[in-house]
Amino acid sequence: MGSVFGKNFTVMTFGESHGPALGVVIDGLPAGVLITPELIQADLDRRRPGQSPFVTPRCEPDHCEILSGLTDEGLSNGSPLALLVRNTSAKKSDYKSISQLFRPGHADWTYFKKYGLPPQPGGGRSSGRETLSRVAAGAVARAMLAPLGLTVQAAAEAVGPVKAKTYDWAFAETDPLRFLDPHLAPQAQELVTQAVSTGDSVGAVIRLQAGGVPVGWGEPVFDKLEALLGHAFFSIGAVRAVEFGDGIALSSSFGSESNDPMGPGGPLGDRHGGVLGGLSTGRPLWGRLFVKPTPSISKPQRTVTLAGEPATITVGGRHDPCLAPRLAPVAEAMALIVLADFYLEPCSKIGSLTLK
Amino acid sequence: MGSVFGKNFTVMTFGESHGPALGVVIDGLPAGVLITPELIQADLDRRRPGQSPFVTPRCEPDHCEILSGLTDEGLSNGSPLALLVRNTSAKKSDYKSISQLFRPGHADWTYFKKYGLPPQPGGGRSSGRETLSRVAAGAVARAMLAPLGLTVQAAAEAVGPVKAKTYDWAFAETDPLRFLDPHLAPQAQELVTQAVSTGDSVGAVIRLQAGGVPVGWGEPVFDKLEALLGHAFFSIGAVRAVEFGDGIALSSSFGSESNDPMGPGGPLGDRHGGVLGGLSTGRPLWGRLFVKPTPSISKPQRTVTLAGEPATITVGGRHDPCLAPRLAPVAEAMALIVLADFYLEPCSKIGSLTLK
Amino acid sequence: MGSVFGKNFTVMTFGESHGPALGVVIDGLPAGVLITPELIQADLDRRRPGQSPFVTPRCEPDHCEILSGLTDEGLSNGSPLALLVRNTSAKKSDYKSISQLFRPGHADWTYFKKYGLPPQPGGGRSSGRETLSRVAAGAVARAMLAPLGLTVQAAAEAVGPVKAKTYDWAFAETDPLRFLDPHLAPQAQELVTQAVSTGDSVGAVIRLQAGGVPVGWGEPVFDKLEALLGHAFFSIGAVRAVEFGDGIALSSSFGSESNDPMGPGGPLGDRHGGVLGGLSTGRPLWGRLFVKPTPSISKPQRTVTLAGEPATITVGGRHDPCLAPRLAPVAEAMALIVLADFYLEPCSKIGSLTLK
Amino acid sequence: MGSVFGKNFTVMTFGESHGPALGVVIDGLPAGVLITPELIQADLDRRRPGQSPFVTPRCEPDHCEILSGLTDEGLSNGSPLALLVRNTSAKKSDYKSISQLFRPGHADWTYFKKYGLPPQPGGGRSSGRETLSRVAAGAVARAMLAPLGLTVQAAAEAVGPVKAKTYDWAFAETDPLRFLDPHLAPQAQELVTQAVSTGDSVGAVIRLQAGGVPVGWGEPVFDKLEALLGHAFFSIGAVRAVEFGDGIALSSSFGSESNDPMGPGGPLGDRHGGVLGGLSTGRPLWGRLFVKPTPSISKPQRTVTLAGEPATITVGGRHDPCLAPRLAPVAEAMALIVLADFYLEPCSKIGSLTLK
Repeated sequence: MGSVFGKNFTVMTFGESHGPALGVVIDGLPAGVLITPELIQADLDRRRPGQSPFVTPRCEPDHCEILSGLTDEGLSNGSPLALLVRNTSAKKSDYKSISQLFRPGHADWTYFKKYGLPPQPGGGRSSGRETLSRVAAGAVARAMLAPLGLTVQAAAEAVGPVKAKTYDWAFAETDPLRFLDPHLAPQAQELVTQAVSTGDSVGAVIRLQAGGVPVGWGEPVFDKLEALLGHAFFSIGAVRAVEFGDGIALSSSFGSESNDPMGPGGPLGDRHGGVLGGLSTGRPLWGRLFVKPTPSISKPQRTVTLAGEPATITVGGRHDPCLAPRLAPVAEAMALIVLADFYLEPCSKIGSLTLK
Repeated sequence: MGSVFGKNFTVMTFGESHGPALGVVIDGLPAGVLITPELIQADLDRRRPGQSPFVTPRCEPDHCEILSGLTDEGLSNGSPLALLVRNTSAKKSDYKSISQLFRPGHADWTYFKKYGLPPQPGGGRSSGRETLSRVAAGAVARAMLAPLGLTVQAAAEAVGPVKAKTYDWAFAETDPLRFLDPHLAPQAQELVTQAVSTGDSVGAVIRLQAGGVPVGWGEPVFDKLEALLGHAFFSIGAVRAVEFGDGIALSSSFGSESNDPMGPGGPLGDRHGGVLGGLSTGRPLWGRLFVKPTPSISKPQRTVTLAGEPATITVGGRHDPCLAPRLAPVAEAMALIVLADFYLEPCSKIGSLTLK
Repeated sequence: MGSVFGKNFTVMTFGESHGPALGVVIDGLPAGVLITPELIQADLDRRRPGQSPFVTPRCEPDHCEILSGLTDEGLSNGSPLALLVRNTSAKKSDYKSISQLFRPGHADWTYFKKYGLPPQPGGGRSSGRETLSRVAAGAVARAMLAPLGLTVQAAAEAVGPVKAKTYDWAFAETDPLRFLDPHLAPQAQELVTQAVSTGDSVGAVIRLQAGGVPVGWGEPVFDKLEALLGHAFFSIGAVRAVEFGDGIALSSSFGSESNDPMGPGGPLGDRHGGVLGGLSTGRPLWGRLFVKPTPSISKPQRTVTLAGEPATITVGGRHDPCLAPRLAPVAEAMALIVLADFYLEPCSKIGSLTLK
Repeated sequence: MGSVFGKNFTVMTFGESHGPALGVVIDGLPAGVLITPELIQADLDRRRPGQSPFVTPRCEPDHCEILSGLTDEGLSNGSPLALLVRNTSAKKSDYKSISQLFRPGHADWTYFKKYGLPPQPGGGRSSGRETLSRVAAGAVARAMLAPLGLTVQAAAEAVGPVKAKTYDWAFAETDPLRFLDPHLAPQAQELVTQAVSTGDSVGAVIRLQAGGVPVGWGEPVFDKLEALLGHAFFSIGAVRAVEFGDGIALSSSFGSESNDPMGPGGPLGDRHGGVLGGLSTGRPLWGRLFVKPTPSISKPQRTVTLAGEPATITVGGRHDPCLAPRLAPVAEAMALIVLADFYLEPCSKIGSLTLK
């Protein structure tokens, strides 16, 4: 279980890191949205491996095929949209030497206990490669939401201890680490280069923001906008903390400092992160995802065999030394999927309400 | 929408702050669990108002009636369990003077835009009083999970800038702020007392831990254990950030520092917070909830009327100067509800798997 | 499980036949619908026991209390609406003598196997009394849909072998058996009277029709309008067959006879029952529910004890000799709940489609 | 929406009649079930077109590819299983001449109104070809349930007015119409041959039975076993009525005739159809599906153009003159999917219940 997400814009993903293919089926996309292979490919390319020294050298074209859901003119027809990407660079042999060992920081141990199966090549379903399906679905959501003027962006606010002081979103899109601060970008790259040279990896903080979200998206109580976004962000493998607005700082502040005052068009500040009472306020929606270092490192680590014997592991294969550049598009995709779901939420008021 | 949570242990809550009653219906509780009014009351009493100078003086007995779902012997019978708590101290008049103003930091503005209704007394459905229903459901989950040896606890790790240095869980349960550090507790109380005296409020950090969670709870991809817990925690009104394990610190660390090594019984450390690959590892599950200061403060704040005219608001009514002591039981309840759901998850493996 | 129904207009019911109370919580009702206790009571009264010699003499006022979800003006506020009805005439003693026997045709045996509990008084959750909650929810759906001109009616087309030849809906509403044919009504009553005199019961066929359903309600593939209605109708205890339009007759006909020709406003006939391709056609939606005789009869029947010993059972208690008059309002309620759900379905098309 | 079915064994189908491919993704299949392409192909071949004069001559190999979810040994690994079938014989040109006309008895009109799109070739998503995905998923369910001794079979009990008097299941599997009565089979074939010769089609009744279903499957109230099966069966395009056990006959009978007496192992008869109180009784589960004649006929029919102008339509293309032989495997598949879902239902009782 667990591969279905969304109530109104429902995505179901499938595929393993070293199996025949990955993909996603989307149910709930209304008729009339123009979907081209190019727009999906554009987002897939943003998370594609093999693009710089800072990401895994596994080279996959990640070519996406649309199997259903469109008219001859390329408009969505109201039926499920199925997207398929074949694995072409699967190398199961990379994992043979460690198939009897539990990789620290990975799902090997917990999957073994849950499913009774030894570690699958490249982590199988638990691999970060699974997020490709999310990015494809996110591109579809983006296409549906774009006419509203709704935009979602994510980039690295910190790489290890290097924290951005300015946010240059255009720069980030060109930076190999997707780092937001042009001045500190060389320092961030230096840090990652050093980590690579020692067989290590580095953590990161992703900043995400959405503009153009209308007032009132989200649902009270359990399906608050932050709740669904939190669900979505924590479903991304390496994300270990999520913050909305200046949430961490607010926790050590006073109410008189933390409340944004109200104007005729809503809150006049952004400390609240764009959500009040679980509903969007019309201000930019923003937050942070705290990402742990890639658990696959080639430094020797202490572990055990499937049989429980002590062992040392050196994780080979092809890995990202820092997840930031490839995780940012995944974070965008998950936010887009959540927003698409709320966009399609049933109406919240009927007829003419009599206000006093 | 939004008042239903859980797939296998499904709770549906209802009720407004100043309406006739609040409650919850639980579907999915298996037959054979002993449920007494006392065990529900015990948890309700832990979040009950009116117990110290540090919580709202609204005095409610919060007496819980069980309407269905039990045999004459008090065992669950497999049918929905309905729990009802009447409001006895609703004071709508408290809110009359501000019913035409949007309270900063509250849901008034967003609900007005979503539902077309002016602010309801005490926030109506968006009031923290709604969490009473969750605590009642959490008590039922606790009763079902207790025989497994599963325990969930939450208390304040920080009150404003005062951060606990030791974690004394037994002390916290007796402390009016549910603060974990006996030595710093007077300092935390002093801080809140000062805030009260100036009509202000204070933020907090809640630490939550669960013991006895078996290996393998959670589901891959979208329904990871952190994803559901994140969903659950962010559904609590004032929670602005959520962290699992040492997640925030890990984001600025190296992989060689952040991976917990593996032993024959699973991970040998706790930096990962008890979850790997979205599934519980058998180690204690733990994390933090970052809570903003209560938005209701009596200091004057800048706002507008329903008609958009500038105004100054002073929020009267009866409010908690710091949410920590009453939010901790709610955090526990939400964790218990999530864990109950995973406990009832369909089986993940069948028959005898042939491992190589 | 099983007490939740609906995706957009979500109802969750609770309560046992001889427990403290029954009720329902509805999530998804938009703000702005006028809901009065009277309109709910009106529908509850239509299925209320104790109204004629042809229904159970159990006398319950079935007074409905609204616990949440309304503004002071009686408008829905977008939050869950909770409705409560207390049991006042529970007589557990009626069932003492048969608590060790499985009643034929009832859920006693299957519930015993599923939950490990002996038969509960009056069937507990499996009692027809549970349908009270559905009728209350149906009344709310009716109030929401009425402004569209949407109406739903159900009445008896057959009582045992007595089949109506004319359909007089106004008459049925006044007839103690809710029988549609005024001329044959005495014959139907005579049949039931005879059955009562011999301690027996009689089956029936309910005809249901909905007017004013717009074109296009329903969803392709699994959530066709008939599929959801079929789900809803078969969830009513004694319903053993469901037919849409002239479905049974069509199964022995030719395509040239069964297709309704098309005109500019849709189909020109009603053999199809108002649904094509799973979506409403704009014509009246209609069908039949085939209802088995009440399984509780006072004629001696062959059964076994909980321990498996052969025994003879005579079911006392207070029962309906024919379910038609009280089941018709339940069928209406279920249809209304399904239609309410589709009314709130997310939009199916976006923007301006370019048609060739 | 509408292409997702099942809570625990969740299937999501996709694909149009004349698009690139059809398929299904299954989430919830536990690890450890042996799934081979052959077992899926075996069921697909049973509904495959082009096999006799009584089914559409469209010739498709319906070759099924497994894209994910298996270990190298062919065992399910707990992840989603994705199945893909490419369309190879799509002939959009067949539909060009009628693309501006609404076919009577089809979804053209309702889809046009819902999605704003003119009739898609072959009905697009509303085509019976969509059921291929269900049969593939049903084969997976069958593989999971087979070790329990659970079997599901469906065949024709009636073809037009020709009704089987004996049920020879082995014969039916070899008969081109899947007709149950060897003696009347020639008569049924003669009837269909005549219909074909006049450009007409014929209705049918499908009988379905499941053996080996344990006691207690199903859920009370809304998710009764009949309710889910009814939902599933009515989701098959041409099904217009569904009956469980002798439901239609019972509706005109007396309670003393309709109740099956109880023995130590449950009911002693089969009039109830294998379900009491919504839960399986351990007796064979059985019922009937009443199927309308194929709406595509080459006899001239009265219709209108997209613009509403009167017209006459003659539906060409390649169609089944009687749906029975190809719909029976679909009915089996839907029953298997429902049973798979209940097999994986969370446990209904816990610990040791104290019975009096």
